[in-house]
Amino acid sequence: MSDQPGDVPLTYAAAGVDIDAQDRALAEVKRLARTTFTRGVLSEIGGFGGLFTLEPENPAGTVLVASADGVGTKLKVAQTAGVHDTVGADLVNHCVNDILVQGARPLFFLDYLATGRLDQGVAIEVVAGLARACVANGCALLGGETAEMPGFYAPGEYDLAGFIVGAVRRDRVLRREAVRAGDALVALPADGLHTNGYSLARKVLFDVLGLAVDSEVPELGTTVAAVLLRVHRSYLEAVAPLVDAGLVRSAAHVTGGGIPDNLPRALPDGLGAEIELGSWDEPALFRLIRRAGQVPENEMRRTFNLGVGMVLVVADEHLGVVLERLVPHGPGWLIGRVVDGPGVRFIGARHD
Amino acid sequence: MSDQPGDVPLTYAAAGVDIDAQDRALAEVKRLARTTFTRGVLSEIGGFGGLFTLEPENPAGTVLVASADGVGTKLKVAQTAGVHDTVGADLVNHCVNDILVQGARPLFFLDYLATGRLDQGVAIEVVAGLARACVANGCALLGGETAEMPGFYAPGEYDLAGFIVGAVRRDRVLRREAVRAGDALVALPADGLHTNGYSLARKVLFDVLGLAVDSEVPELGTTVAAVLLRVHRSYLEAVAPLVDAGLVRSAAHVTGGGIPDNLPRALPDGLGAEIELGSWDEPALFRLIRRAGQVPENEMRRTFNLGVGMVLVVADEHLGVVLERLVPHGPGWLIGRVVDGPGVRFIGARHD
Repeated sequence: MSDQPGDVPLTYAAAGVDIDAQDRALAEVKRLARTTFTRGVLSEIGGFGGLFTLEPENPAGTVLVASADGVGTKLKVAQTAGVHDTVGADLVNHCVNDILVQGARPLFFLDYLATGRLDQGVAIEVVAGLARACVANGCALLGGETAEMPGFYAPGEYDLAGFIVGAVRRDRVLRREAVRAGDALVALPADGLHTNGYSLARKVLFDVLGLAVDSEVPELGTTVAAVLLRVHRSYLEAVAPLVDAGLVRSAAHVTGGGIPDNLPRALPDGLGAEIELGSWDEPALFRLIRRAGQVPENEMRRTFNLGVGMVLVVADEHLGVVLERLVPHGPGWLIGRVVDGPGVRFIGARHD
Repeated sequence: MSDQPGDVPLTYAAAGVDIDAQDRALAEVKRLARTTFTRGVLSEIGGFGGLFTLEPENPAGTVLVASADGVGTKLKVAQTAGVHDTVGADLVNHCVNDILVQGARPLFFLDYLATGRLDQGVAIEVVAGLARACVANGCALLGGETAEMPGFYAPGEYDLAGFIVGAVRRDRVLRREAVRAGDALVALPADGLHTNGYSLARKVLFDVLGLAVDSEVPELGTTVAAVLLRVHRSYLEAVAPLVDAGLVRSAAHVTGGGIPDNLPRALPDGLGAEIELGSWDEPALFRLIRRAGQVPENEMRRTFNLGVGMVLVVADEHLGVVLERLVPHGPGWLIGRVVDGPGVRFIGARHD
């Protein structure tokens, strides 16, 4: 594709990721996981985090919410650019958001760092990023595993995964069943790609446009590396007080699959969403990728957050106070409404 | 080295793993982690699992014990042999043992499976192994992340990491401070390499001896793959009842670093151990590796479990009942005693 810039529309599947194959395997994985469920399990796999309680009989007992995540191929950008102290923060913040949308605050985090041969300096930079984000989120870095696997990772490459456990009172778990048609959808701004869509973004920026990590991109006002490595934002500080005040019915962390795949996870069966295009600021990076890669709009929406990192589902009577309280954090944008009937529909037009 | 079989003694460092470099980085990692510690943290990094409580004021409150681990280069053997339904059990059992030595029983587990392009069949086999071991250990497979990272992993390769959370009453946490000089050291048999020493074992078996995964090895009575892929044993069923009965003072899971690096983690400062060589059955695989690789004995002990998967520290008055109760599980071997003065000393001679 790099030989024919602009001639072939790029899709995430063409860039090497097959989301449908992932979905099929996920169904069997869920079935297998269900065979292991004990009395403490309160969730099905497929929520943003898994729910477990030590007090199955207590309706107001503490629920532990756990999630596992990786950084994905954003790591490749970091490794090419030689920047290792931001990917840890990406990972912690991603995990924090995954349990936040179920109402939980983080307790502790563990990491898994795997490499061919450990470069101590790199490992310490990675952990420094993890630790900084853990402090910012009030989350203890309780442990981790550093694995040297000779012959498994190419020189200079490593993989990084993380696991978080948070807690929430059982009667305060955010549940999609609380959502009603007519509820407002409030979007929180993303800082760039966060941790999703890097395979496609790299194809377009590096292969189609022939840029390097240190290339200045005038329309982005900075280098490719600076734009691609912007840290996945934690929404804890903005959202936890709203959750504590009972102002949020449900929430979706917009990661792989974008709004179309993630927002329905925060809505009950039978309800969907109408999203008004142009109701939020789409960062210039996404316009560049869309245009240069001739990426179809459906593919853009299923691959990228397009500037929306989290969506809160808010009862209409709370919309005003929620938007007001989000101002110092962001702001928040009213991007649509919950509607009868399943699925996510985009209406109106983008402001390009 | 494969050109000169037998000429060059093999060490773990020569095989690509530098344990000392790992140790130096670990010290800085611990310092960074400490900056994140909140009131709930009850442990320093370096224990087999991290300890966290939601009730810092309650001396009999529930303590969560968490651990992260990978399978390491045992995965390479599994991938070469095309056997994908055992590595999940290796990982779960490894994690279960890591929290068991602190007195905890498992609650839930999450996995991280990363690959270049997802092969659904392989992914499902991996998860089937995880699920089977979770059921056997009464542990819920609560979630996980399957990451497709095109260009990151070679075709047919994947990495697998896991994360476990268990619980124990705070006044029943196994603590090394309870150990006294003269206590008995009771070893539990390992089923092969478990998940450590594979880089060195692969060098010797594949490079020095020129074997393939399907080679029959007469002195081992089976194929290389069958021996190398034996599943890491879970000691939950054997040890948890002893812990519940107050018969165990402390315990060490023998993983990377062998007995010399892991047993001291179960002993207080100022106390060490005397281990009597020949007091347990060393599987034939280790003799083969030692001889064929001309591996120095110190290197063997720091790299492999040598047939001892876990060591329990037991007060002398409980030794009889502990050994008796372990018979159906193993058996247990009295391999030495706790002594004054730090360090692990091996005395006597092996029965070769």
